[in-house]
Amino acid sequence: MIQPKVIHYSEIEAQVVGAGAPGATIRWLIDKEHDAAPHFALRMIELGPGGESLHHTHAYEHETYVLEGLGRVLIDEQWYDLEPGDAAFVPPDAVHQFANTGEGTFRFLCAIPV
Amino acid sequence: MIQPKVIHYSEIEAQVVGAGAPGATIRWLIDKEHDAAPHFALRMIELGPGGESLHHTHAYEHETYVLEGLGRVLIDEQWYDLEPGDAAFVPPDAVHQFANTGEGTFRFLCAIPV
Repeated sequence: MIQPKVIHYSEIEAQVVGAGAPGATIRWLIDKEHDAAPHFALRMIELGPGGESLHHTHAYEHETYVLEGLGRVLIDEQWYDLEPGDAAFVPPDAVHQFANTGEGTFRFLCAIPV
Repeated sequence: MIQPKVIHYSEIEAQVVGAGAPGATIRWLIDKEHDAAPHFALRMIELGPGGESLHHTHAYEHETYVLEGLGRVLIDEQWYDLEPGDAAFVPPDAVHQFANTGEGTFRFLCAIPV
């Protein structure tokens, strides 16, 4: 049987993304590996000042929500400014990258299918 | 082709949930109907003071994240307190209900498979 989980994000390790994503960490809040979440995973991405996520593309979508800070997201050819309260949908197969444009941490949730 | 979308949550209508969920509204931030999101939908639930979501069960899971306010969630037999920054996973087939236990709005994101 799949178990419920309630946890504060700060209790989940912020893993360094590494090459190609300077200043970026990811916390897997709810996922298949740990929680047997059957359809999608909820992650938190944090970008330090000047930080960027990977510039890449893949066959699955992102559904994101900005929690803190200022940033922008590239989706194919266009950059969109982001602030807290913004939701951003990155379609499957779109080239995309998130970047911190502020002076503090840029923090957002990012859900993906499993 | 599926289009990108960037939108502030306040630009999306807060729909009254209605009977069985006093003080509850839902905003469909990213979904299949409007955005052709292929796997899951991202919604924002807001509960006014004393508000509650439906007490029910269904075959799909919830992945939630608390944005603002204080509340709690019933999952099967147990209540869990919730505060901003908490992630809560409601497994498929669990009886569940969210409730506002604070004096302001209790606001959380809730993702479901399509």
